[in-house]
Amino acid sequence: MHTPADPPPAEAPTDAPAEAPVKVTAYAAPFAGAPLERTVIEHRPLGGRDVLIEVAYCGICHSDIHQSRDEWGGALYPMVPGHEIAGTVTAAGPEASLHRVGDRVGVGCFVDSCRTCANCRAGLQQYCLDTPVGTYNDTDYEGRPTYGGYATHLVVDERYVLRVPDAVDLREAAPLLCAGVTPYSVLRHWQAGPGTRFAVVGLGGVGHMAVQLAHALGARTTVLSHTPAKEEDALRLGADHFHTTADPAVFEALAGSFDLILHTVPVTVPLDACLALLRTDGTLVTVGSPPLEQPMNVFSLINLRKSMAGSLAGGIGQTQELLDFCAQHGLRPRIEVIPATRINEAYERVVAGDVRYRFVIDGSTYGTD
Amino acid sequence: MHTPADPPPAEAPTDAPAEAPVKVTAYAAPFAGAPLERTVIEHRPLGGRDVLIEVAYCGICHSDIHQSRDEWGGALYPMVPGHEIAGTVTAAGPEASLHRVGDRVGVGCFVDSCRTCANCRAGLQQYCLDTPVGTYNDTDYEGRPTYGGYATHLVVDERYVLRVPDAVDLREAAPLLCAGVTPYSVLRHWQAGPGTRFAVVGLGGVGHMAVQLAHALGARTTVLSHTPAKEEDALRLGADHFHTTADPAVFEALAGSFDLILHTVPVTVPLDACLALLRTDGTLVTVGSPPLEQPMNVFSLINLRKSMAGSLAGGIGQTQELLDFCAQHGLRPRIEVIPATRINEAYERVVAGDVRYRFVIDGSTYGTD
Repeated sequence: MHTPADPPPAEAPTDAPAEAPVKVTAYAAPFAGAPLERTVIEHRPLGGRDVLIEVAYCGICHSDIHQSRDEWGGALYPMVPGHEIAGTVTAAGPEASLHRVGDRVGVGCFVDSCRTCANCRAGLQQYCLDTPVGTYNDTDYEGRPTYGGYATHLVVDERYVLRVPDAVDLREAAPLLCAGVTPYSVLRHWQAGPGTRFAVVGLGGVGHMAVQLAHALGARTTVLSHTPAKEEDALRLGADHFHTTADPAVFEALAGSFDLILHTVPVTVPLDACLALLRTDGTLVTVGSPPLEQPMNVFSLINLRKSMAGSLAGGIGQTQELLDFCAQHGLRPRIEVIPATRINEAYERVVAGDVRYRFVIDGSTYGTD
Repeated sequence: MHTPADPPPAEAPTDAPAEAPVKVTAYAAPFAGAPLERTVIEHRPLGGRDVLIEVAYCGICHSDIHQSRDEWGGALYPMVPGHEIAGTVTAAGPEASLHRVGDRVGVGCFVDSCRTCANCRAGLQQYCLDTPVGTYNDTDYEGRPTYGGYATHLVVDERYVLRVPDAVDLREAAPLLCAGVTPYSVLRHWQAGPGTRFAVVGLGGVGHMAVQLAHALGARTTVLSHTPAKEEDALRLGADHFHTTADPAVFEALAGSFDLILHTVPVTVPLDACLALLRTDGTLVTVGSPPLEQPMNVFSLINLRKSMAGSLAGGIGQTQELLDFCAQHGLRPRIEVIPATRINEAYERVVAGDVRYRFVIDGSTYGTD
């Protein structure tokens, strides 16, 4: 684990003059569909409220794969993915006051927002009406490309940096920044708690955190997964019930059972089939990342006044709340730590569903073979 | 207008013995796609809490057309459509206590429900978990076919019969039973009122009642219609703003404008285009009747935590509340009264959008040429 006492990496970006761009070693996709390869990219010079973060660990989110392969369109190359970033502050701009050198910190899905719109003022920076600046595959408000956590370091405005509680290991903090806060935001917004009949469809990175969080919030929690072999894990993570979506009879048996469903795997389970599992006035929330349009029948909504909603990560305040909640309740993602040289292999395994439940890249390996 | 003093019709079903089926003259579709023609059908004998209603007026709902043409599947023939029924009680079973002979009454989209499930107990009979009995194109709990308001009379359990306030003309009461309560239920459930930025897509039967109701509830009301010529009507009905969906620039100009959108014409305006008009946490409610599945992109929901919901008519209590609300505020559907011989012609005009804003069949013409 990286601590403030660790020696700086070979590139030692902290030694560069403050006004110079920060050169860092990174793993990038050079173009759509290409394997990720080691390269050097430049972050902006450290600004007044910027901090330089040495990346200790970075989670691999399925959306990293969608974006690096340009499956959502509009991809910018070279692309350095990674928005589940945990590390340590190694330098801070002169006006930084929230985080100091040596602090254990995290960065999630966005690194800036307008800070003036109604959503930003309400703490919903992820829904910034001027569009938030994505942690990677985006450009900042001055037009410079952003690069994510598949790199030794990154420069981020401290207002978009989270504090990692002492009780949370940096390796396990990383996935919380997306796979943790995404279900947490859903569960809080739709007020899951005692009495809520909650189901999560898909036991992957997001799903396995959803189970733990819902259970900790007191909801009656069901896991629906197409992999029967995940039952033991589901129950160990806190699920009250497990059913396999591979069995069509399950959909009949569970019709009208749930107040809230979190749908994390749109590709494998059709929306209409999931909507049928909702009770009257129930809500299906999708956070998944389907590459394209999906068909749906609005009668699935009309018959019992059901809703389908979408949700995107969480705001800065809520992300901090999630980190603190996980520390308090001892909730931990189940991870497999890999060196950077295995990123491309890990991508194939994520696509094949062969990970329990999140790959986390060891940031100390970006510069080594 | 029919009043209790009117003479009974030629068939005089009230003269039949109480235990005999009630033969009535009706307009029915004999099979899918066939024009409606005059025929005689049988209602069940008048039960203890049943009332016999002489139909004064019956609205033509677009769903009558979908169902008589079997566009939703599972149609039962001969089919006597009609679920916007206003008339007068001409006989009552011995245990009836809610309505008496001579009362001005209405019947909407359903004529029975289990009365024991959680939804029925909550007054949401339209969402009866044992499935409500449709006013037509359905079978009752004893397996007998149900027939709607395109007929001189119908037999209905009095608990599913509404009281038409004195201030509401029977002609204008009819469309309220579906086209009125449908938007009313949406506006109440999603709490439209002062401060709500509400839009209705489509100025048809449902839409033109939605405008009046939303305005009366204090919402800022916008009409989006593909027919620019409807602007004057929209404003007269109480809309604050009118925009034509035929102009793509409208969708750009109004992006992120509404808290609540009622979508009544799914066929002509794609869901994704409408979802883009919602503000953060906004809801699009569809009550439309698309024959089939529609494509949608879940990113339309995810980006600003939007919801899409469905809604179906209203419960008995809420339907009564709607009738009373219309009486109190002087809200009236705009109708075109036709004789029964023009039903098939009216169907073509509804499909072509050529009605302002509801056809209402004069019930006194079912037995005449």
